[in-house]
Amino acid sequence: MRFISEMPYGETSSDGVREQLFTLGEIPGVLWTPQGAAGTRPLILLGHGGGQHKKAPDILARAHRFVAECGFAAVAVDVPGHGDRPPHEEYHRIATENQARVAAGAELAPLIADFQALVARRTVPEWRAVLDAVQRLDHVGAGPVGYWGISLGCGLGVPFVAAEPRVRAAVLGLGGALASAEAAARITVPVEFLVQWDDERVPRDQSLALFDALASAEKTLHANPGAHGEVPAFELDSTLRFFARHLV
Amino acid sequence: MRFISEMPYGETSSDGVREQLFTLGEIPGVLWTPQGAAGTRPLILLGHGGGQHKKAPDILARAHRFVAECGFAAVAVDVPGHGDRPPHEEYHRIATENQARVAAGAELAPLIADFQALVARRTVPEWRAVLDAVQRLDHVGAGPVGYWGISLGCGLGVPFVAAEPRVRAAVLGLGGALASAEAAARITVPVEFLVQWDDERVPRDQSLALFDALASAEKTLHANPGAHGEVPAFELDSTLRFFARHLV
Repeated sequence: MRFISEMPYGETSSDGVREQLFTLGEIPGVLWTPQGAAGTRPLILLGHGGGQHKKAPDILARAHRFVAECGFAAVAVDVPGHGDRPPHEEYHRIATENQARVAAGAELAPLIADFQALVARRTVPEWRAVLDAVQRLDHVGAGPVGYWGISLGCGLGVPFVAAEPRVRAAVLGLGGALASAEAAARITVPVEFLVQWDDERVPRDQSLALFDALASAEKTLHANPGAHGEVPAFELDSTLRFFARHLV
Repeated sequence: MRFISEMPYGETSSDGVREQLFTLGEIPGVLWTPQGAAGTRPLILLGHGGGQHKKAPDILARAHRFVAECGFAAVAVDVPGHGDRPPHEEYHRIATENQARVAAGAELAPLIADFQALVARRTVPEWRAVLDAVQRLDHVGAGPVGYWGISLGCGLGVPFVAAEPRVRAAVLGLGGALASAEAAARITVPVEFLVQWDDERVPRDQSLALFDALASAEKTLHANPGAHGEVPAFELDSTLRFFARHLV
């Protein structure tokens, strides 16, 4: 693990959040911790959305609040083919083919599901390696881990949470059962699951079926009106309380 | 409006909540306010469940938290045939007939729906009269009103919220579209809607259909695993924040 740059360069940022860019092998990542933090603390891994990256505005906003309000550490990395990673030839080819298929009348959801399942075979081991590396740092340590990810972050997050016993609670959503019902049935930790009631990308019955498939004794579905990208701001407040309840 | 008795008899109760039993005509009710309160404040009307009453444990617990943590007033009254009200001959006869029908194989949900629609024709005007009376008190005043009610409290609450413009936000749930989809389509205030994922009394698709029918621009569905009576305790925290967000 190699640290590349650091904000706010030894000063205290406005909300007291320290940001460190790093690479782990070929994976570019960013770690946020409370300014001056020492010792073990809960860690949230955030999975970004499709076409987004590790410092997309919604990821940054969530990470800052996890750190500033809860004292947690937060980490995000670029998914292959996203952010600071080179274009990924195979993924790019499949995405282009899928666009052509949808233009020719194919159903979108199964194509998304297959694609996410393919990418997850690579991101699950990558993200586990990121946890290994980050938890060896003195200002993070081997505390309880949470996962936050919706849309692509859900499609990749479900198999990750199913595979990784360090994850003790997860916020997931905007994803359907086609991609990950089998992995969901192996998840037993508490889950807060977001559904957009008028999601134009994930059919409502597939969202409900993915929630249904989770084996967690404690799971809460939060559904709100609006399109895929319109999760209301008050859900972030709920996310903070959810992680505070389960990781502290 | 006639006050019958008062707790804690001029002393401050452990959580600072003043409780006043009253009757309004033939309606027995109870009003909770902060000890020593003066002036206008938000008011929550709570609708109790079937076979329950105005001081059932879940009503008491919610009312105390609304008052102690938010500084609100809270009021609950007995539904006809419940609590301190005399047995209601017609409702009792229908309930007995319905039990016989279910024993003979009839579907429960439509019978519940018809019964709740019948009772609501009486409770809607009663509850509006209660608001009139309570809001004339100096320590309550004509502030914004919230409604909380699940199960029977939803079946009676949906037509009440639809009819009463003073209600500015409502927590509803454990109810289906059969009883009240038409009234739900006239509700435009923010709603937090509770669903028990394994509800043995309200079929899941009817719960989702009632949420769907609400015309509110802001509505949030919270679904949790478990039977009709097993709403998790953390939903009360969410209820408090929901009312604080919309009534203050």
